[in-house]
Amino acid sequence: MKLARHLAEHVAAMRYEDLPPEAVYWSRIAVLDTIGVALAGSVEAPPRLVEDVLELRPGSGPSLILGSDRRVGCLDAALVNGAAAHVLDYDNTARHMGGHVSAVMVPALIAAGDAFGSSGRDVLLAHVAGFEASARIGRGVNDYHSDKGWHPTTTLGVFAVAAACARLLNLTADETETALALSTSLSAGIKANFGTMTKSLHVGQCARGGLMAVLLARKGFTANPDAFEHKQGFFKVFNGDGNYDVAPIVESWGAPLDIVVPGASYKQYPCCYSTHAAIEAALNLVREHGGPFDPAAIARVDSWTHATRLMHTDRPEPDSSLAAKFSVQYCVARALVNGKVVLEHFDEDAWRDPMMRALLPRVHAAPYTKELFDPEDPFDAEVKVTLIDGRSFTAHVDRPLGRTSEIPIPPENIRAKFEDCASRVLPPKAVAAVTRAIEAFEEVQSVREFTKLLEPATAGGTGARREEARSLAG
Amino acid sequence: MKLARHLAEHVAAMRYEDLPPEAVYWSRIAVLDTIGVALAGSVEAPPRLVEDVLELRPGSGPSLILGSDRRVGCLDAALVNGAAAHVLDYDNTARHMGGHVSAVMVPALIAAGDAFGSSGRDVLLAHVAGFEASARIGRGVNDYHSDKGWHPTTTLGVFAVAAACARLLNLTADETETALALSTSLSAGIKANFGTMTKSLHVGQCARGGLMAVLLARKGFTANPDAFEHKQGFFKVFNGDGNYDVAPIVESWGAPLDIVVPGASYKQYPCCYSTHAAIEAALNLVREHGGPFDPAAIARVDSWTHATRLMHTDRPEPDSSLAAKFSVQYCVARALVNGKVVLEHFDEDAWRDPMMRALLPRVHAAPYTKELFDPEDPFDAEVKVTLIDGRSFTAHVDRPLGRTSEIPIPPENIRAKFEDCASRVLPPKAVAAVTRAIEAFEEVQSVREFTKLLEPATAGGTGARREEARSLAG
Repeated sequence: MKLARHLAEHVAAMRYEDLPPEAVYWSRIAVLDTIGVALAGSVEAPPRLVEDVLELRPGSGPSLILGSDRRVGCLDAALVNGAAAHVLDYDNTARHMGGHVSAVMVPALIAAGDAFGSSGRDVLLAHVAGFEASARIGRGVNDYHSDKGWHPTTTLGVFAVAAACARLLNLTADETETALALSTSLSAGIKANFGTMTKSLHVGQCARGGLMAVLLARKGFTANPDAFEHKQGFFKVFNGDGNYDVAPIVESWGAPLDIVVPGASYKQYPCCYSTHAAIEAALNLVREHGGPFDPAAIARVDSWTHATRLMHTDRPEPDSSLAAKFSVQYCVARALVNGKVVLEHFDEDAWRDPMMRALLPRVHAAPYTKELFDPEDPFDAEVKVTLIDGRSFTAHVDRPLGRTSEIPIPPENIRAKFEDCASRVLPPKAVAAVTRAIEAFEEVQSVREFTKLLEPATAGGTGARREEARSLAG
Repeated sequence: MKLARHLAEHVAAMRYEDLPPEAVYWSRIAVLDTIGVALAGSVEAPPRLVEDVLELRPGSGPSLILGSDRRVGCLDAALVNGAAAHVLDYDNTARHMGGHVSAVMVPALIAAGDAFGSSGRDVLLAHVAGFEASARIGRGVNDYHSDKGWHPTTTLGVFAVAAACARLLNLTADETETALALSTSLSAGIKANFGTMTKSLHVGQCARGGLMAVLLARKGFTANPDAFEHKQGFFKVFNGDGNYDVAPIVESWGAPLDIVVPGASYKQYPCCYSTHAAIEAALNLVREHGGPFDPAAIARVDSWTHATRLMHTDRPEPDSSLAAKFSVQYCVARALVNGKVVLEHFDEDAWRDPMMRALLPRVHAAPYTKELFDPEDPFDAEVKVTLIDGRSFTAHVDRPLGRTSEIPIPPENIRAKFEDCASRVLPPKAVAAVTRAIEAFEEVQSVREFTKLLEPATAGGTGARREEARSLAG
């Protein structure tokens, strides 16, 4: 059996009732986290510029543009919201798929759900299906595929979106097969454009493409069922002979479901992942210390992380918001004196904060020399605070929480992250209402009702922040 | 200097006044031919299905959907019209770019011209610029790129569209550089989906993508100027080390302009290119004979073409419209008894025509054994007609007219092809008006005025055919 057919039959056969509770839990966490980062990202320039060039007319369709009360066609909403979901690079990733799996799927699912009146359960099931299909393909083509320079978030993510939306809209196995085969021709995105706005455009373009493939397939569009294995098909063209293996793709679908084991990785802090273990160590010290440190009381801070992590995060004097996100010194200092690391620490001039500038010369970063790192996953960190009174505190973190489902971020921290993100565009009452709705997402009868909660106007928000961003982008 | 910058500076420096007359001529021919095939293609299922899933509201934007009087956003129009321009595979191709160069550019240029009020000269210049930029890139990556399975029409065509639209909208060199660099992340399309509707979707998606890259670049979007050469950039990811050469890309821009030498290849007949030399030989016999042959007078027809061409066109008894397009026997028989080969010969049940069914058993196709073929371009054909009265006629054609600008299709034949194509959706008066407008396209003050001529309703057309197609597609 050809791969498109194999995957299509599995996707078409999935039922919400058959999902293990852990899969429902993690799918709901992914929806919460992705909507949160998309709301926070919605005020950034890339999604605003994308919306701008689309010249959409508010009210021209059923699907909400996140962070606004504008509703447009579902393909356009998927494009704009996809860019918003990834622009902060604060969204989750999947190890086997090799990229940002929920940022491509959730915007497409919510946009399609708005258009077709899907239920919360439909979305949760669809997200599990897309996660699994892309993890399967990733097992057969990574890490070669990713190392070569493809951006798996979108080159493989398009199959996640197609599988998810096919499941959402209840496509037959034949139609799902076509959507997946068609998606081989929409697969795109190279890593050369990392570090530019184009990276978040990849995600929007992918969300739109995978959804379009599904909408076309259900109308009778055609594609080649052999599009993966063909001599000029996905495997040979993207990876090449000898650089992929179909066996791990077709074996053991859903046993276990990839969203459960290993699960997605989540970020707790809106900065470079290579700083996260050190931040967590610093926050553990805050707890041990009984509260945030008084910067005036600190004599010296030492942070040790792996040399490959430190290479791009050793910035003792960050000179922009972006540099601050890649400064382990800044991030550790924020954790110690603020007791948290949140979005406002990277807003506009936050990096100029005189308190920070005074403390940073006393924060020292060095490569970890104790050879204690997991060579496969060198993420641990040690942080030591020495106070002027002579006391010192030291904490070690093996891997930041959220790396896999085995070391999950506590639900209250995921919720706090969501609230921090959503507060960028929604008033507190709305944030609380949306949080409640997502935490019981399997009870949501219609995505249409759900997205009404996300409209700042309906929610009583002023939208000032958003309007300001729009005028900047324009 | 990086390639994106190099190409951008050339594109940004181009001026209509500097174009040689041959470039203007061929650009106008390309616009005429592409609009013709797009009008003819507009009634086919792929563009209709694409428009259907976009759920566009007529009047929601400035840009015309060809074959209709519906106006929508320019990105959506580029997508739908791109699919229409290629669906019949009747559009032109460029040797160095390696694909259907005008079908990707013209829909984007007309859609953007509608939105921004560009002039005819703007469009003609832009089309030359995009033709040249993609030819340059093609010289550095083909034929490896194409043989590997990429569909150069769109993987390289996206650079043609970006360069063309950047020139159309008068982008700066910096903005053009960004549009080209961004387009490396939109480059997509694999040959495995040839023979399915997805092939024409490639073209629409590419037209939309290249135009979107330009609209984003002019608003300040960012991409990596090093996106071609980067270690995870276009060259290494799509072709790989050792399989591309930058030298022929950066040498001798426009000397001569690729649209002039070798120029594009044009199709005179709406069927497989491998039948064209035999059709032309048959039409030469019709002229020699003083008019079409009476099928009852024909004792035997012999057609000789190259074995590699015959392999997929040896269909003595075609059993569908598509099979008729790939039947050298059917095509030669049509040429002999109709004195032309036009769209209606491949409409619905035309292949069942009793006159044809009676004649086909007397039409014999065989591989050419005289070893007279150009091994690089084995397109010649010989056709012999033996009449019942004993007379016989033989004609030989080296290469069909239109293969390069050295053996051009006579303008009256290009015009006849346009009229045949446009008549599918426009009444005769409108066809004549549009033909006149394109034949003096450098005098068109605004694309907006021009596209009004293309509206069937304005033109007094019934649109019956179109509506019928829509209901079929729906």
